Amino acid sequence: MRPSAVLESALYVTDLAAAEHFYGTVLGLEPAGKVEGRHVFFKCGKGIVLLFVAEATRHAPPPDARLPVPPHGAAGEGHLCFSATEDEIDSWKTRLNEAGVAIEAEFEWPRGGRSIYFRDPSGNSLEFANPSIWGL
Amino acid sequence: MRPSAVLESALYVTDLAAAEHFYGTVLGLEPAGKVEGRHVFFKCGKGIVLLFVAEATRHAPPPDARLPVPPHGAAGEGHLCFSATEDEIDSWKTRLNEAGVAIEAEFEWPRGGRSIYFRDPSGNSLEFANPSIWGL
Repeated sequence: MRPSAVLESALYVTDLAAAEHFYGTVLGLEPAGKVEGRHVFFKCGKGIVLLFVAEATRHAPPPDARLPVPPHGAAGEGHLCFSATEDEIDSWKTRLNEAGVAIEAEFEWPRGGRSIYFRDPSGNSLEFANPSIWGL
Repeated sequence: MRPSAVLESALYVTDLAAAEHFYGTVLGLEPAGKVEGRHVFFKCGKGIVLLFVAEATRHAPPPDARLPVPPHGAAGEGHLCFSATEDEIDSWKTRLNEAGVAIEAEFEWPRGGRSIYFRDPSGNSLEFANPSIWGL
């Protein structure tokens, strides 16, 4: 018995409007939900990328809440990696460059496969990598 | 042009040994890598769950690093949700109960689908949810 897949991956952002533009327009992800001042969500393949404002999600729900979502919220630079083929990584380098987003690092892994790293507007470390680096 | 999938989802943990036991034995995920004092990784479906010790990943790589992975590292309670069918959610409740892991919250979403929430040993908020809550 083991979990079959990750359904939701979360990052915390300090500027929700900047995050919405970056993930929705620069990366082109499909919107999946938004609550002003709290979060913006995007679909990504068979999963969801959750972008939260930690100050808003650290509060415990009221005792009578209909949806008592437990509190959470981290501070600092998180990490998330998107799948990409070799060709897609090249296309993303062009796209990110056009959008003024710096490529912070790029290298081949010892067992093959390549990664590029960049930052979202809140400083989270994002990556495009070939699933082959994990044997996937 | 949009990312096709999330490949790696990251959480930060304060006790790496406890995290390894929890994710590897209680949740039963398949190991995918480990560096003592820094991280433990697990496969999950077509993705990877990365569990980092933030104190070890916040350091910038040396200028001549062969693999100059950019620094990152968050503090506080992160969030990650695994996919599960209705039947699987019931089985996980039993499994978590047997392992002494409290179910912090459980509810049905307004549009259908159910979630259960619990904590990893570092306090991260974990969830099992039916992909139907996202129309997936």
